Amino acid sequence: MPSDAASQVTPVRRGRRPGTNDTRATILDAARSRFAEDGYSAATIRRIASDAGVDSALVMRFYRSKGDLFAAAMSVPPEALQRLSDAFDGPTETIGERVTRAYLTLWESDPIEFEPLLAMFRSAVNHEQAAAELREFLQARFLEGIVPRLENRPDAALRVSTVSSMLLGVVVGRRIVRVKPVVDEDLDTLVKLVSPAVQTILTAP
Amino acid sequence: MPSDAASQVTPVRRGRRPGTNDTRATILDAARSRFAEDGYSAATIRRIASDAGVDSALVMRFYRSKGDLFAAAMSVPPEALQRLSDAFDGPTETIGERVTRAYLTLWESDPIEFEPLLAMFRSAVNHEQAAAELREFLQARFLEGIVPRLENRPDAALRVSTVSSMLLGVVVGRRIVRVKPVVDEDLDTLVKLVSPAVQTILTAP
Repeated sequence: MPSDAASQVTPVRRGRRPGTNDTRATILDAARSRFAEDGYSAATIRRIASDAGVDSALVMRFYRSKGDLFAAAMSVPPEALQRLSDAFDGPTETIGERVTRAYLTLWESDPIEFEPLLAMFRSAVNHEQAAAELREFLQARFLEGIVPRLENRPDAALRVSTVSSMLLGVVVGRRIVRVKPVVDEDLDTLVKLVSPAVQTILTAP
Repeated sequence: MPSDAASQVTPVRRGRRPGTNDTRATILDAARSRFAEDGYSAATIRRIASDAGVDSALVMRFYRSKGDLFAAAMSVPPEALQRLSDAFDGPTETIGERVTRAYLTLWESDPIEFEPLLAMFRSAVNHEQAAAELREFLQARFLEGIVPRLENRPDAALRVSTVSSMLLGVVVGRRIVRVKPVVDEDLDTLVKLVSPAVQTILTAP
């Protein structure tokens, strides 16, 4: 099943890289190897650029930051991550609903978005190196982007990672283990059921 | 790391099988192969007994039911599952706290209990056959044992599986991906944070 989805993904993704295909692909290959070898923290833009035979400025022109480059190398679309972290902005009273919907929708829609996430998660579950990369990435990029949005909460990082873990669990139940009632339910019912729980964890005193 | 834990597990587990070691081991081997080949639903006690060269009554004497035999074959201690489903009994006002604590404690303590669960989960994430087995097992045994305890809730199965998925997610964050704040927190703080969310999902109107 994953291989079917992967074969659907490739042609579409190619359509999204206009013009400078080869250079981008070379940079992404270099980044993938470097992140795999050194891990997220130790890998540098300078070193990846050197591996790819280009200069750092060009890498930064294509990918604004090391985080975006990692996301691209792992094929997690930066827009998807952006939508997730944007869900944390807005009125506190509805943060649970926004975050739940953004997170669960991410894995429902476009296979281009969720298949790489599934692949990343699958590797992380079975390989310590991949888990370390996912962990560093989540901490450095996802958490650090979101936590400042929850002002006045000394334990914001704990709350955000607990919520992320819980929502990931719902996705695992729905998309991987596929436990019957969680799979069959439509997204709105699931969002309605889960949102108050997420609201509680993010905002309880 | 998993291999370290596994090597610690073996001698202890042997100590738990007094006397009829060989017959039990033969039955478990037969069950493991049969469940793997036919899946949980299609596999029968009769067939497993025949594969093992014993009669069905002996299999039933060692393992009370097909569910217990599967749990034993997958090395999930039946007592652990029992503690989990027992947590659903008792006053409704505190069900969230009981279920959260029972579930999270299961993966904290004895490696004999959580390592097989981790192994089962790891297989399920990467192999559709293992996912199918885990799914059938959860539906046939875990859910059917718990759902009748939540009377008057037409959507009890959805609530229980959503909660199980969410708690599994917390365990994945804590034990597998090991996102920093979720790993570092002591169990009581985590239970205190997550319980109201579980309470909400299980009991909200």
